[in-house]
Amino acid sequence: MTRDLAALDRDLAEMGCSALVVVAGSSRDPDLAPFVGSVHLGGSFLVAPRGCEPSLGFFTPMEREEAARTGLGLLEPAALEVGKRIEEGLSAGDFVGAVLARGLELAGVAPGRIALAGHGAAGVLWAAGSRLAGRGFTLVPGNDLTLLLRKTKTSAEIAAARAAAEGTAAALRAVARLLAAAAVRDGELWLEGERLKVGRLRAEVGQTLAVHGLEQPQGNILAPGRDGAVPHSTGDDGRVLRPGESLVADLFPRGGIFADCTRTFCVGETPEPLARAYAAVLDALAAAHREAVAGARGFALQEAACARLGGAGYPTPLSHPGTEIGYVHGLGHGVGHELHEHPSFRKQAGREGVLAPGDLFTLEPGLYDPEAGWGVRLEDLVALGEDGPQSLTPLPYDLDPRAW
Amino acid sequence: MTRDLAALDRDLAEMGCSALVVVAGSSRDPDLAPFVGSVHLGGSFLVAPRGCEPSLGFFTPMEREEAARTGLGLLEPAALEVGKRIEEGLSAGDFVGAVLARGLELAGVAPGRIALAGHGAAGVLWAAGSRLAGRGFTLVPGNDLTLLLRKTKTSAEIAAARAAAEGTAAALRAVARLLAAAAVRDGELWLEGERLKVGRLRAEVGQTLAVHGLEQPQGNILAPGRDGAVPHSTGDDGRVLRPGESLVADLFPRGGIFADCTRTFCVGETPEPLARAYAAVLDALAAAHREAVAGARGFALQEAACARLGGAGYPTPLSHPGTEIGYVHGLGHGVGHELHEHPSFRKQAGREGVLAPGDLFTLEPGLYDPEAGWGVRLEDLVALGEDGPQSLTPLPYDLDPRAW
Repeated sequence: MTRDLAALDRDLAEMGCSALVVVAGSSRDPDLAPFVGSVHLGGSFLVAPRGCEPSLGFFTPMEREEAARTGLGLLEPAALEVGKRIEEGLSAGDFVGAVLARGLELAGVAPGRIALAGHGAAGVLWAAGSRLAGRGFTLVPGNDLTLLLRKTKTSAEIAAARAAAEGTAAALRAVARLLAAAAVRDGELWLEGERLKVGRLRAEVGQTLAVHGLEQPQGNILAPGRDGAVPHSTGDDGRVLRPGESLVADLFPRGGIFADCTRTFCVGETPEPLARAYAAVLDALAAAHREAVAGARGFALQEAACARLGGAGYPTPLSHPGTEIGYVHGLGHGVGHELHEHPSFRKQAGREGVLAPGDLFTLEPGLYDPEAGWGVRLEDLVALGEDGPQSLTPLPYDLDPRAW
Repeated sequence: MTRDLAALDRDLAEMGCSALVVVAGSSRDPDLAPFVGSVHLGGSFLVAPRGCEPSLGFFTPMEREEAARTGLGLLEPAALEVGKRIEEGLSAGDFVGAVLARGLELAGVAPGRIALAGHGAAGVLWAAGSRLAGRGFTLVPGNDLTLLLRKTKTSAEIAAARAAAEGTAAALRAVARLLAAAAVRDGELWLEGERLKVGRLRAEVGQTLAVHGLEQPQGNILAPGRDGAVPHSTGDDGRVLRPGESLVADLFPRGGIFADCTRTFCVGETPEPLARAYAAVLDALAAAHREAVAGARGFALQEAACARLGGAGYPTPLSHPGTEIGYVHGLGHGVGHELHEHPSFRKQAGREGVLAPGDLFTLEPGLYDPEAGWGVRLEDLVALGEDGPQSLTPLPYDLDPRAW
């Protein structure tokens, strides 16, 4: 792990905090994962006192071997008095609060301001936080600290992203293969003697991703026609695919970390409005690839995309705030232990909105017309290295799956 | 949805709360999912005023179609003034707090005691909760309410569990098939001209589960020898399997909801201590199946398992608290939108510790010897119906995969 903990120390100092505490339901918690790597832990937490090495707390001795694999200093269940707390029959929130208080004590963190990150059950966290507050700790939101820490990927994380992107690309190729093999009959697509439905594509995607060791904790989008005209509609498994309609295939699986890639297909003759939108989106994506260099602001890329798509005659979030027709979303987002993280492409972003080497992010212009019933989105996953940006999803962009 | 909201109202009344608020990062949040079913939403929340229908709040108009599919009353982004809050450049915690406050107002919930459930980023929730507290709301931990609400599964949830269990069973059969097909050479297992490694089994499991539309958000356990002697060790992909050792295969994938099932294998001659432990675990599991009837306490089943396994000469958590040899964990746990939920098998459990029709839970006795390097666990997923318990994982129990 070559994570820059010095930056964390500077941020803690700026916030007047003596430590960062990360609470987690498992080692896959996006705030904990960057510290612990690929181990398998349940409920656990991290205490990172300013200027000191972090320590890992865990709740059951059954996980001692996995915990040891992290290489971190350990706050063991016995030292945390976990058994005693369980015997006391505390509520979940009071239990977590008591164990965290003990962990802070063991890590040498005195009552005062501490930053809180990680994730958990809302009521439990509220009660645990209240218990810490009662012991003299002032809690300050700390998820932004871990988000900033995670913005710059380690080489291991970029390698994991590359592997996830390869699996994602394989799954999109598998979708293209099925579509290319389909026959048109009475205005519907047919394959292997059956109507070709969204569910068939979704099964193929799941199997292909599994072969690559990838999961889909947030599902996927395989959205034909009008479903694809609303960017977050996932598409119904029972829906039969039709020629001449758009199909938005947006996959965002996770291996060690997430990947994210979208292609749009159209089998058969492409209606003119769809062809025109596709050309505009492709042009905006190509421009975004050119502009995604170190030092650029994410929002500047969004502005440029709006200028291009607006210039092509489509409403955009800048010309028509809240529009549901035309370009209706942001240009991209960082990707990592969470599907959406830094860098940010939002107007309000501070330093997290500036692209820098080590960033991993999407570029994903799109155009939509819910009334006409079509959507186009093209999305690449980009790793910004010291020597410039590289697309991790070098797939064809063709609408026609037979061109893949 | 035939969820018993009247019970929720009674619990809210008992706690002196006027509403339950569920905050969620997505519609897969285990506290939100029981209310919204299988839709695909990002950040969202639910307000359930006591005695009234719940309303669903969401943050982006792009998700309006998915939100509408829930059939719930909607708190739309415009009405929640989401755009205005974003313009204000609030921190994440203040943003969530402000939107929740507006949602409560729209749902007619006046400042006072409210129960808080759902899950999220710890720092964000703390800040959001503090903002609500500043507006006169007193937050009470509410995750226990949603856990209780979820204890009794709907018929749709049992159907989802059945489907997930079928896929899990198929994956364990696939593991057995590979093991049965392996040859022994120089103290190692070989298959298809290669040493048979844990990673080969894990790939087979992933693909088989994907065919059944199942994900593994919490991974799985394929733990040979000493790895399987520590219940939560996941097993290393590069480890070559050997004859005469135990292999604990514990799968806990999720479809609509989770399934959970474990079998233990041994290829070739079974060492006597392993054979003896296996027989004791099988006996304890059979007894647990008989005892898992409506009205029984989960902890009574645990006591019975301890008596049996203790009687067979093994340390147990009751005879040797904290033991890492022998029987070292609980007998089971509820399963649902989370892998571990109610019913509880813990001593301290109240009404959540009593088995009742509609419950879905595991029975999973095990024996372990980290020094000798073996582990045995057998785990079934049981649905307790009006007419008694039914195992959803009717698989062979044989150690020998060739007997499957």
